Amino acid sequence: MKITKEDLTKAQERIKSYIHHTPVMTCQSIDEEAECHVFFKCENFQKVGAFKARGAMNAALSLTPDQLAKGLATHSSGNHAQALARAAKILGVKAYIVMPRTAPEIKKRGVRGYGGEIFECEPTLQARESTLIEVIKKTGATEIHPFNNYAVMAGQATATMEFLDEVKELDVIMAPVGGGGLLSGTAMAVNYFSPTIKVIAGEPAGSDDAYRSMQTGKIEQAQSQSIADGLLTTLGDKTFPIIHELVSEVITASDAQIVNAMRLVWERMKIIIEPSCAVPLASLLKEKERFKGKRVGIILSGGNVDLERALKLMTDKALNT
Amino acid sequence: MKITKEDLTKAQERIKSYIHHTPVMTCQSIDEEAECHVFFKCENFQKVGAFKARGAMNAALSLTPDQLAKGLATHSSGNHAQALARAAKILGVKAYIVMPRTAPEIKKRGVRGYGGEIFECEPTLQARESTLIEVIKKTGATEIHPFNNYAVMAGQATATMEFLDEVKELDVIMAPVGGGGLLSGTAMAVNYFSPTIKVIAGEPAGSDDAYRSMQTGKIEQAQSQSIADGLLTTLGDKTFPIIHELVSEVITASDAQIVNAMRLVWERMKIIIEPSCAVPLASLLKEKERFKGKRVGIILSGGNVDLERALKLMTDKALNT
Repeated sequence: MKITKEDLTKAQERIKSYIHHTPVMTCQSIDEEAECHVFFKCENFQKVGAFKARGAMNAALSLTPDQLAKGLATHSSGNHAQALARAAKILGVKAYIVMPRTAPEIKKRGVRGYGGEIFECEPTLQARESTLIEVIKKTGATEIHPFNNYAVMAGQATATMEFLDEVKELDVIMAPVGGGGLLSGTAMAVNYFSPTIKVIAGEPAGSDDAYRSMQTGKIEQAQSQSIADGLLTTLGDKTFPIIHELVSEVITASDAQIVNAMRLVWERMKIIIEPSCAVPLASLLKEKERFKGKRVGIILSGGNVDLERALKLMTDKALNT
Repeated sequence: MKITKEDLTKAQERIKSYIHHTPVMTCQSIDEEAECHVFFKCENFQKVGAFKARGAMNAALSLTPDQLAKGLATHSSGNHAQALARAAKILGVKAYIVMPRTAPEIKKRGVRGYGGEIFECEPTLQARESTLIEVIKKTGATEIHPFNNYAVMAGQATATMEFLDEVKELDVIMAPVGGGGLLSGTAMAVNYFSPTIKVIAGEPAGSDDAYRSMQTGKIEQAQSQSIADGLLTTLGDKTFPIIHELVSEVITASDAQIVNAMRLVWERMKIIIEPSCAVPLASLLKEKERFKGKRVGIILSGGNVDLERALKLMTDKALNT
């Protein structure tokens, strides 16, 4: 493995004064519905509202002073963009964020709020990549990829390290999977610190590339058809091998199941999670007979969602059956 | 005062194994916006989703075994109904709840979920009172009033007792005011355990009876015109004298200010609060120059809101100026 146990311990030490040690919550009525004991690690309460604060901070703090001075760059329409802008602000350097012009306003505001400089481009992967190359050429900034980066992956692992410290005797830990940063981090933390726990991923059925990649043993392309907008990416060449080796299984959930799980968390736990964040619970509920009586840890990945969009999802008849 | 320091200490002891010791949360970006340090006592995470679990439980546990055996009754369209049904269920007795037929479905489901028996009536105070009298005549149950009841008021005080234990050197504690159960409890707890703290109430401008009652020195009638549907009632003859004696001030907030504060908490803190619960923060923000640099405790009273309704309020252009 490219990331050692010591890398994880160092990452935790390195970032701990810059991030929240997020709380673990439980909910009796969700336990009753799920017929098992569910522990939620609330990364929706993390800085910038998502676990991404961890990986971005660890990656930034892992650069040399010379690299750091020239700034950080990435293309991201999501939480990583805010997380990187925040890390740059804390360290007193510039953040250059390439975003599709169609990205939600709340995410753009978030980036600007941290002093990040946004470069808008067409909403295609090609436009994002070519714009990022230009920006890096001009500025000399270092690219911090949202997930396919060892320092980022080690940073994401720290959520699970805290989780394992706080909740004992878990049978399963579940995390959502998009590009695989959080999932590979989760799997490494479990592997090094509590290897008897099974790691299971939740993935949107409309973008089930991780599910298929696990079957074929190679990276399959994402179809990107789901409301879980943080999970539409294809796995990376750094995340996939770890996931393939250490993750037991990927369970997919439909958009209706995702909205149902999201609604359950909002109504019963009184906390706000974004659609992508609801995917592991949706996957658990879909196959709940298999989890009966078990102690299941779920990483709630983030809580950044436009309220207008949430209203549309929760009142869309097709998604609320 | 009709309620002693010992009554409060006993109430806390009596109910503590039946309720959550709720967390206190802070939020850097709300502190920046408010220009002071705000501590939120999260009763939205309380059992039944509101502080009402405290008062109902204390009142039920204060009855004689004979009284208790005949069951508990109330008229309430709100959180008290669920709280009383829950208390009855825990103690193995019946709960008879009179509710206007127009009450939100989520509240009816909540009551039925705890095994409470609902008696629907017309949505007038007169119909509610006469239906309740009938129910009590038939069943022999004891009425537990939502707020105008000393045991209920002492129970509500326990939220502030926990708060004072956890957060030191507060300058101000704010609570919303409707019938005055929570506010009178808050004021008594401060009076007995930390009397230098100022108690300030937040009240909807469209139902500002407490504000007016403080001016005239007698109970004024509520106009009940606000989206803060938990705060539309007039003060009671047991709550008002305590409020008049111990509360420094009532600050009113408009519906637009309430929605703005609610949205701020949802978006920044990632937690769900109901409109009534947002009123103290709305009042603080309205007069924020007066709170500059202070340490302000706010009791977040509850999180029970139809999600569609809440999201509509927060995306309603007329309320979001």
